Amino acid sequence: MSHPIGNPDSDRQVLISEVGPRDGLQSISRIMPTAAKKAWIDAAAAAGVTEIEVGSFVPASVLPQLADTAEIVAHARAIPGLTVAVLVPNFKGAEAAVAAGAHKITVPLSVSESHSLRNVRRTHAQMLQEVQRIAALIRGLPSEQRPHLEGGLSTAFGCTIEGVVPERRVMELAVALMEAGCDEVGLSDTTGYAHPAQVRRLVRAVWSVVGRDQLTGIHLHNTRGLGLANALAALDIGLTTLDASLGGLGGCPFAPGASGNIVTEDLVFMLEAMGMRTGIDLEGLFRCREVLAQALPDEPLYGMTPLAGLPKGFVPATASRATV
Amino acid sequence: MSHPIGNPDSDRQVLISEVGPRDGLQSISRIMPTAAKKAWIDAAAAAGVTEIEVGSFVPASVLPQLADTAEIVAHARAIPGLTVAVLVPNFKGAEAAVAAGAHKITVPLSVSESHSLRNVRRTHAQMLQEVQRIAALIRGLPSEQRPHLEGGLSTAFGCTIEGVVPERRVMELAVALMEAGCDEVGLSDTTGYAHPAQVRRLVRAVWSVVGRDQLTGIHLHNTRGLGLANALAALDIGLTTLDASLGGLGGCPFAPGASGNIVTEDLVFMLEAMGMRTGIDLEGLFRCREVLAQALPDEPLYGMTPLAGLPKGFVPATASRATV
Repeated sequence: MSHPIGNPDSDRQVLISEVGPRDGLQSISRIMPTAAKKAWIDAAAAAGVTEIEVGSFVPASVLPQLADTAEIVAHARAIPGLTVAVLVPNFKGAEAAVAAGAHKITVPLSVSESHSLRNVRRTHAQMLQEVQRIAALIRGLPSEQRPHLEGGLSTAFGCTIEGVVPERRVMELAVALMEAGCDEVGLSDTTGYAHPAQVRRLVRAVWSVVGRDQLTGIHLHNTRGLGLANALAALDIGLTTLDASLGGLGGCPFAPGASGNIVTEDLVFMLEAMGMRTGIDLEGLFRCREVLAQALPDEPLYGMTPLAGLPKGFVPATASRATV
Repeated sequence: MSHPIGNPDSDRQVLISEVGPRDGLQSISRIMPTAAKKAWIDAAAAAGVTEIEVGSFVPASVLPQLADTAEIVAHARAIPGLTVAVLVPNFKGAEAAVAAGAHKITVPLSVSESHSLRNVRRTHAQMLQEVQRIAALIRGLPSEQRPHLEGGLSTAFGCTIEGVVPERRVMELAVALMEAGCDEVGLSDTTGYAHPAQVRRLVRAVWSVVGRDQLTGIHLHNTRGLGLANALAALDIGLTTLDASLGGLGGCPFAPGASGNIVTEDLVFMLEAMGMRTGIDLEGLFRCREVLAQALPDEPLYGMTPLAGLPKGFVPATASRATV
C-alpha cells in the first residue's frame, strides 16, 4: 500500500512546450542578446525540453526583443529532436517562419474582437482570411517542409476589455480556424481569468465541435495563482500539451495586469511527482534557470521548486522509467 | 451553452479555516501586538470567515508570538457565528484551551517520529497518551462546553528529515488518533511535499480505515507552488474543509524550507469562481489583507489575486446565491 513519493500513478507522457523565449522575452523591455537566447535554448534542450517557442515573426519596430527570430530558429533547428515553434501574427510573418524553417507555427486569434483589434489590429474576419492564406502557403510546400499550423484562441477564458467571453464564441472560432486550414487549435488564458471548472468545461465544449485530436494543448497564465490548478484540470480531462515559461517569465503586454505564465519548473515538478513523464530533468531545468537569471539579472523570476529544492527521497517519473 | 465566468457549477459549500493568526504568526520573529491580532480577526470575520485558528497554547518561552492566545480566544468568542480554533501540543495546553473556551482543539501528531521529536520532543506513543488524556478531559466537561477535538497528522506527505512517509504509517496513526478519542483527523502537508495524485490517494487510504466523516479537512502548503492544485485535488474527491493563511503567511518553523501556507485570497477566488460557496467576500478579504499588511509592514505577503484584481464581469458563487 505504501508508495514512494514519486512513484508513477500513470503511464502518461506530457509535452511541455517552453514559451519563455517568445512569450517571456516579448513581455520585458530589455532585449536579450542573441547569444544569451541560444544559450538558454541549448540549456533547455539539454534538460530534455523537446518543444520551444523560440520567437515571433513580427516587425522589429513592434517587438525589437524578437528581431533575431530567424537566426534563433536556425540555431534551434540544429538541435536534434527539438521542435522549433514560432508565433506569427499574419501572412508576412508566416512567410518568414517558413523561410526560416520553423517546425510549428501558431497564429493567435483573440476570441475577444476588442482584444484582437488592440493586439494585431485586425477583426476576426481579417484574421481568418490571414489564416487561410497561411494554410495555402503551407499546403504549397513539399510535405517534408510543411510546418504544423496551430490556431491559438487567445482570451478564450475572458477578456480584460470585454469581460465574459461566451463559450459559444470560442467554439465557433475553433471551427472557423479548422475550416481555414489549421492542423489544430489551442486555448489560451491570455488574461489569467481561467478557473479549473471552466478549463474542463471549455475544453470539452471545443472538443465537441472540432474533435479531441484537434485540441491537445493549452496556454495558461498564473495571474491569480491558479495556473497549476488549471493545468491539473487540463491534464485530468486528457490534454497532453501544456505551455509554460521558465521562471514564469512573460504574459501578454496588451492585456493589462495579465502577466505571468505558469512556471515550467513547478509544472514539471508537479507532473513528475504525479508519475507523468515530461522527459525533462529537473536539475537540468534548474541549471537552465541559472542561465536565464544570469542573462536577465534584474528580472524577477517566479517559481518555488527551484528555491525549496526537490523533496528528500523524490524520484521523478522520467528517471524511474528511464531505468526500466 | 455560455456561462458567466463565476456561474456556479455546483452547489457545494467549502469551509475555509483561516490559520494565519496561529500558523502565520508563529513562523515570523516579530510579535504582533494583541490589538492588531484582534483587528485582523475582526476583519476576517467581517469578510465572512467562519473559522479561525487564533493561536496556540504553548509556553511563551517557546513561542512568545502567541503568548496572548487566551485573550485572543476570549475576544474571538464574542464574534457571533465564529468557530474559534486553537492548536495545543500537550495536555497542559489543552487545559488552557478549555479554560479559555476554544471551540475546536487540534493536537498535531507528526507521522514522521523524527519530526515529532524535533517539533514537540515526544514519541508517537507519548503523543497518543497525551491525546487520550485530552480526550478524557473533554469528555468530563458538560456537553455544551466540549470543544471539537482534531488529531492533525503532520508530515503526512513526506518529511524533510525522514524523506518518504509510508501511507501505511499515516493510516495506522489516523486509527490510533481516533481510538485515543479524537472526533476527527486531519492531514497536513507540513513540508510542502504533496502532489495532487498523492492527496487523492492518501485521503482515500485514510478514509478506508477511519471513515469519510472522520477526515474532512486538509492543511496544505505552497512550498513548491502546488498548493492550489493540491486543494483542487482535495476538493475533487470530496474534502470540505481547507486550511489557508491570509497572504500565505506561515509554514512550519521546524521543517527547514517548508514555509508557505496556501493563500486564502487565491483559494477563495478559485473556489468562488468554480461555483463553490465559501461565504467569504473577496473584497472584504482584500481589506483584511490591508489590515495585516499595515500590522506587519516588513513581512512579505503572498497571493496574486489581490494584486491582479478580480476578473472583469466576475460573479462569485457566494454573492450569486445570496441573492436567490
